[in-house]
Amino acid sequence: MVKAAVMGAPQKPLKVQEFPQPELEPGAILVETIYSEVCGTDVHLHHGQLAGVPYPIIPGHVSVGHIARLAGEVTDVEGNALHEGDVVTFLDVHETCGRCWFCLVAKATTRCPSRRVYGITYSADEGLLGGWSQAIYLKPGVKVIRLPEELTPERFIAAGCGLPTAIHALERAQVQLGDSVAVQGSGPVGLNAAILAQLSGATQVIVVGAPQARLEMALAVGADHVVDIEQYGPEERVTLVQELTSRRGADITIEATGNPVAVLEGMQMTRDNGRFVVVGQYTDAGTVEVNPHWDINRKHLEIRGCWGSDFSHFYRGVKVVAKHGERFGYERFISRKYSLEEANQALADVEELKVVKAVIEP
Amino acid sequence: MVKAAVMGAPQKPLKVQEFPQPELEPGAILVETIYSEVCGTDVHLHHGQLAGVPYPIIPGHVSVGHIARLAGEVTDVEGNALHEGDVVTFLDVHETCGRCWFCLVAKATTRCPSRRVYGITYSADEGLLGGWSQAIYLKPGVKVIRLPEELTPERFIAAGCGLPTAIHALERAQVQLGDSVAVQGSGPVGLNAAILAQLSGATQVIVVGAPQARLEMALAVGADHVVDIEQYGPEERVTLVQELTSRRGADITIEATGNPVAVLEGMQMTRDNGRFVVVGQYTDAGTVEVNPHWDINRKHLEIRGCWGSDFSHFYRGVKVVAKHGERFGYERFISRKYSLEEANQALADVEELKVVKAVIEP
Amino acid sequence: MVKAAVMGAPQKPLKVQEFPQPELEPGAILVETIYSEVCGTDVHLHHGQLAGVPYPIIPGHVSVGHIARLAGEVTDVEGNALHEGDVVTFLDVHETCGRCWFCLVAKATTRCPSRRVYGITYSADEGLLGGWSQAIYLKPGVKVIRLPEELTPERFIAAGCGLPTAIHALERAQVQLGDSVAVQGSGPVGLNAAILAQLSGATQVIVVGAPQARLEMALAVGADHVVDIEQYGPEERVTLVQELTSRRGADITIEATGNPVAVLEGMQMTRDNGRFVVVGQYTDAGTVEVNPHWDINRKHLEIRGCWGSDFSHFYRGVKVVAKHGERFGYERFISRKYSLEEANQALADVEELKVVKAVIEP
Amino acid sequence: MVKAAVMGAPQKPLKVQEFPQPELEPGAILVETIYSEVCGTDVHLHHGQLAGVPYPIIPGHVSVGHIARLAGEVTDVEGNALHEGDVVTFLDVHETCGRCWFCLVAKATTRCPSRRVYGITYSADEGLLGGWSQAIYLKPGVKVIRLPEELTPERFIAAGCGLPTAIHALERAQVQLGDSVAVQGSGPVGLNAAILAQLSGATQVIVVGAPQARLEMALAVGADHVVDIEQYGPEERVTLVQELTSRRGADITIEATGNPVAVLEGMQMTRDNGRFVVVGQYTDAGTVEVNPHWDINRKHLEIRGCWGSDFSHFYRGVKVVAKHGERFGYERFISRKYSLEEANQALADVEELKVVKAVIEP
Repeated sequence: MVKAAVMGAPQKPLKVQEFPQPELEPGAILVETIYSEVCGTDVHLHHGQLAGVPYPIIPGHVSVGHIARLAGEVTDVEGNALHEGDVVTFLDVHETCGRCWFCLVAKATTRCPSRRVYGITYSADEGLLGGWSQAIYLKPGVKVIRLPEELTPERFIAAGCGLPTAIHALERAQVQLGDSVAVQGSGPVGLNAAILAQLSGATQVIVVGAPQARLEMALAVGADHVVDIEQYGPEERVTLVQELTSRRGADITIEATGNPVAVLEGMQMTRDNGRFVVVGQYTDAGTVEVNPHWDINRKHLEIRGCWGSDFSHFYRGVKVVAKHGERFGYERFISRKYSLEEANQALADVEELKVVKAVIEP
Repeated sequence: MVKAAVMGAPQKPLKVQEFPQPELEPGAILVETIYSEVCGTDVHLHHGQLAGVPYPIIPGHVSVGHIARLAGEVTDVEGNALHEGDVVTFLDVHETCGRCWFCLVAKATTRCPSRRVYGITYSADEGLLGGWSQAIYLKPGVKVIRLPEELTPERFIAAGCGLPTAIHALERAQVQLGDSVAVQGSGPVGLNAAILAQLSGATQVIVVGAPQARLEMALAVGADHVVDIEQYGPEERVTLVQELTSRRGADITIEATGNPVAVLEGMQMTRDNGRFVVVGQYTDAGTVEVNPHWDINRKHLEIRGCWGSDFSHFYRGVKVVAKHGERFGYERFISRKYSLEEANQALADVEELKVVKAVIEP
Repeated sequence: MVKAAVMGAPQKPLKVQEFPQPELEPGAILVETIYSEVCGTDVHLHHGQLAGVPYPIIPGHVSVGHIARLAGEVTDVEGNALHEGDVVTFLDVHETCGRCWFCLVAKATTRCPSRRVYGITYSADEGLLGGWSQAIYLKPGVKVIRLPEELTPERFIAAGCGLPTAIHALERAQVQLGDSVAVQGSGPVGLNAAILAQLSGATQVIVVGAPQARLEMALAVGADHVVDIEQYGPEERVTLVQELTSRRGADITIEATGNPVAVLEGMQMTRDNGRFVVVGQYTDAGTVEVNPHWDINRKHLEIRGCWGSDFSHFYRGVKVVAKHGERFGYERFISRKYSLEEANQALADVEELKVVKAVIEP
Repeated sequence: MVKAAVMGAPQKPLKVQEFPQPELEPGAILVETIYSEVCGTDVHLHHGQLAGVPYPIIPGHVSVGHIARLAGEVTDVEGNALHEGDVVTFLDVHETCGRCWFCLVAKATTRCPSRRVYGITYSADEGLLGGWSQAIYLKPGVKVIRLPEELTPERFIAAGCGLPTAIHALERAQVQLGDSVAVQGSGPVGLNAAILAQLSGATQVIVVGAPQARLEMALAVGADHVVDIEQYGPEERVTLVQELTSRRGADITIEATGNPVAVLEGMQMTRDNGRFVVVGQYTDAGTVEVNPHWDINRKHLEIRGCWGSDFSHFYRGVKVVAKHGERFGYERFISRKYSLEEANQALADVEELKVVKAVIEP
């Protein structure tokens, strides 16, 4: 039998349940979970803030594990055969169709209507399709990456789903060598963005966030300056960023907060003709009032929404954390590991910002 | 003596005054005005809605005329000598410095703080530095373009300052062959954008505006559909654009209205992963409430403010209207020509949307 | 029975053979051919110049026809159901995998190694997988587009495979409003490029090619100038283009010749910091000597190879020819229609440049 | 008096001459030289391989020194006043006009025909306009940057003119996080490119060059692999790069060799749909034969020539070396410092590749 933590309905405590060992259809893989991530999205799921979620679900979208069984020959995207015992991760986003208008004409695969996501849009009734489980069933066609030898499962999961999200955000940001980058938010996406901004050529990184422990983490991973939002109000924050950037504002700002007012603030802390990437507004948290004359048009500002991530972001993320993970000490992001039975505690700790990164170790 | 219409102060009627014939410093040019444009900016100037305007001014930023006198040898940007009698226009934006951070590092010359603009930021006390005058004094270094033979002064002025503004907006829009483009606004910028969208490869152009006469003009210049904002409310307009675009929204939307709420509407009538160019918010007309989750992040939307225009837009605009002006019947935009003495009437007619384009013929 | 023209082996005459009416697997479509194109690639196929072709084949990669039968419900990429009698075309490129490194990481689907192409890489032994046939078997997953009502099959086939190829080339060219564009080659790709350059904003289009009849066609579809390569040598051609472009060279040059020396010439007829798209070197026709200092580095030149086309180019091409086909009189490209029995004659006429576009009408 | 090393004519030994202390026109600055660079261009100048050089010249285009005197108030591009004693460097490229077609329409300022370059296109008869001199005369308008406190003159000059050149090349390369980058050449531009590729997000950098000492330097600054061209022939090098990159070739290749055949090799060691930046072909060193089918078109390759650098590259370079100079140990590039009297020896050592970087300390 396989034990998994099941979120039966919004607001209700998760329970550990047992599932039978699955049979594999051809091309499927069974992964024995080493770690699965707990992220802000799981808190949203628990509050019922996402539409169309088929509760009960097994949460956990980014995970890492050993291959326990394969049904036939299965390869990774580079055509290399996978084997039992390989330490792998996989893209949680599944079923991007490759046949619809968004996939083929817009080439905006993160807006493909057929997308399904492990740990979010699959029901526990459909199988072991989430990571908070001793085993995960990878359907045929799920894209698998073998971790490079130099990358430990712990370091990989520490980067978590914030890594591909931030890779996508940085792709949208198009940082140039010598740029200044302001990052709004000091959670997993914000911290990853602060690291990736440096790796993309920024020579100045400013992180605007809270609480203090996360800002210290931001400094530890190389941010040049932090602005504590518990200490400074919105206008002061904008002024502080401007003072740090020759009174012009940051060349690039990356919003990773989830708070609508941060969007206005981000426009204002970006310099004229700069770029502002909005990646943190994952759920509907209300509106914000902007002045299109001052905040967009006269600034000649470029604002780029950034939704989800695709395989390329995931693949590039693995390369980046394999190469630079040690330098940035990613493991420090993991504040605590939790058993399946402790899943409710993990959710509570993430919600209360007690941890930077919580990890389930089934 | 030279007669010019002078705007002495906001809200006060313009008066025609006489100025002495100017002496030319080396490199200067005196242009005998054929036509000068009346545009929405002139209405804003008359209402005192722009900051830092050194009243009294001679309005008129885009103009066309004959060279009456030159002080020494003066060339255009291609190095060709200019001569008396040449029919020329000139870039109203002057003194872009080429030495500041915005010019050299950001390469965002429309945000150069040294910019001065004929007809807007020069005082009448400094000379004949606006187009509502029998003669215009071109300071050394003002960038001059000789109209190609096939381009009449009338057709050029009909395109007016809306042309380079729209060229810039279309540059930001990056239309691809086969795109659908929604244009918000049916004034001079909107109509130019509707034309340029077609010339940039769009196969479907939808103009959302009013009044009826302007929408008919939009259809006459090739728009495929028009949406009358006097007939449909904001939500209906969004729905109508979606219905015309396979329920996805326009690939690209160009805002050219001046109304803040149009910015929200424009986000909503653009498809996921589309582009939305905000070019019409030239003055501060208040705020608009947006939902960053639905309107920016989840849509993976790209929003681009577009401020002013530079010489390249002006130069490209002349090429475009020389080549295609006849096809689009630009002259029709000119609803009426006004003498200097009728400048107040011209302003009133523009403000009341009685005309598409008003032209001063000194 | 279904009659088709079969190319049994390189250099051997094609023969018309009869095939049984195929049974359809679920999701397949049988198309009754109206027209199929004869293009330069078919001549290359007949000379055995492409590697890996599984002779015998039924040539014909771009075709148009009626849906005769469908196996179950089949939709187009916009999700609209297809029906018997619909006039459709389809993307000849099939089996782009969506799972390999080139599809997912490089996002360069025209380099996907799994691609198969109707009329080229499918054997006649595998079925009715080419257009020179009374019927074409569309495998499940082949991407189908219903022709818009305003687009006749004749006009569509006149544009032919040169249209998506040229759409792709123009996408790589990134023409701006007011650019000058030189097109090398006056065959189907070159003529389409000359049209699309205009539709993309070019205000000057120069076509360099031969023979005279094709240059006249170039002028008829709106080219501003033509340069006859039978009349002028390589250096003269470069000089002529420079003289037409203020002695700078074209802003953008598009090579569509198949002749290696045209690549050197194209570099030289492009202005400093211009863009040069190489789309015509479809087969190995030898080498060319370039001077990297003068022709690339000092010019600050951008050279872009352009291979194949994907669904977006095909889809955009249909939109463009539906909208603008009448204006450009595409039907004129069809010099002659041939029966299946005349396929050898069609190939000979294409090879000898006797026709602009040959079409098989089975 | 001021001593300077003068190159009287090609091939002739340089001589140290004395010049009078210059008087300053308003806006001019006199810099007391700390270091000036010796680079490959100076060797080309000594061989007479550049056209239009007004011998006699004082070589030395990138230099650093103290401000000895200023004529009036002079500011840097950010508007900050400069003072006596400031440690400054300056952009050698002067007189970019800001008024010509290339500056204004193409926005390709490195192709502005009015450009003059300190140490290259100014004659010694015109003044102290090169860096191999105890003092350098900065004309009004020369763009000056004050070194940040954390950046020593030694570290700055170690990066030298290879830094802005490589910044420009990397701008053209558009490296993405996780890319593999091959750098051809291990001289100052190549080594800077190897560093900047890492700072731009590459997770794999391969340097192809010689001699062994430079390759060791490449490894010391973080290259993952080196390929010794004295050990491997052209085909082997291409194969080696492919083997290091999953048999696809590098995502991006940067040519920095000066050898025409490297251009062919670079095309071949880049993956399909990759980018290849040609920056090393600074002088005419002959031709190379390429096959446009295999090397450009079928590869869907993008080739970008990269000429010179502008102020933004220089400015960004200073930011980058100030931030990361210590990490990469830039000082190691300086193999030896030479007095003015040893200028001939410095040139000889550079030509014979005995040094990575030679520096004049007047």
